[in-house]
Amino acid sequence: MAFQLIALYNHPESAAAFDKHYNETHAPLAATLPGLRAYTATRPGPTTGERPAYHLAAVLTFDDEQSFNAAMGSEAGKAALADLANFAGAGVTFLTGPTDTIV
Amino acid sequence: MAFQLIALYNHPESAAAFDKHYNETHAPLAATLPGLRAYTATRPGPTTGERPAYHLAAVLTFDDEQSFNAAMGSEAGKAALADLANFAGAGVTFLTGPTDTIV
Repeated sequence: MAFQLIALYNHPESAAAFDKHYNETHAPLAATLPGLRAYTATRPGPTTGERPAYHLAAVLTFDDEQSFNAAMGSEAGKAALADLANFAGAGVTFLTGPTDTIV
Repeated sequence: MAFQLIALYNHPESAAAFDKHYNETHAPLAATLPGLRAYTATRPGPTTGERPAYHLAAVLTFDDEQSFNAAMGSEAGKAALADLANFAGAGVTFLTGPTDTIV
């Protein structure tokens, strides 16, 4: 069964600074995680006029939990985690678990 | 640019009842949304020993915002939204927005 890491980033003080760092540094770094099968980043818009709950939602998919753990323990994984301190000071919620591929 | 709907379900009173309804009724219904390109459902495990923030995270991917809006306005979309009342009483957070496909 596939395995996902979903990162939900709180609204940063400066969306422009966050987006620049995410696009130019963090995403290219995370994209080098070994065994990463898919990686999307969604920037939610207002829902029924309200500010969305998060600024950015990243979804990283691996073949299985073992691949995910190996990726996190790799040099790229350590670097990506360490990089959070450079842009995610407003907080981030991680969800990790087994994934049903329905479609 | 692709477009995602991410549904983050709060922990239900009964995880077993939620999962049964989600797997047997809601997911098959949502899977019939026109233009749906990918659909995953992740059940987060504890992170560093703490209960995860959500019980289930569904990620639905469409070609673009227009396809997403058409899907939501379809009979299947209306039925899927109406079905939330049958299992998601604990609450659900929706994120919808444009999606960068990084990997």
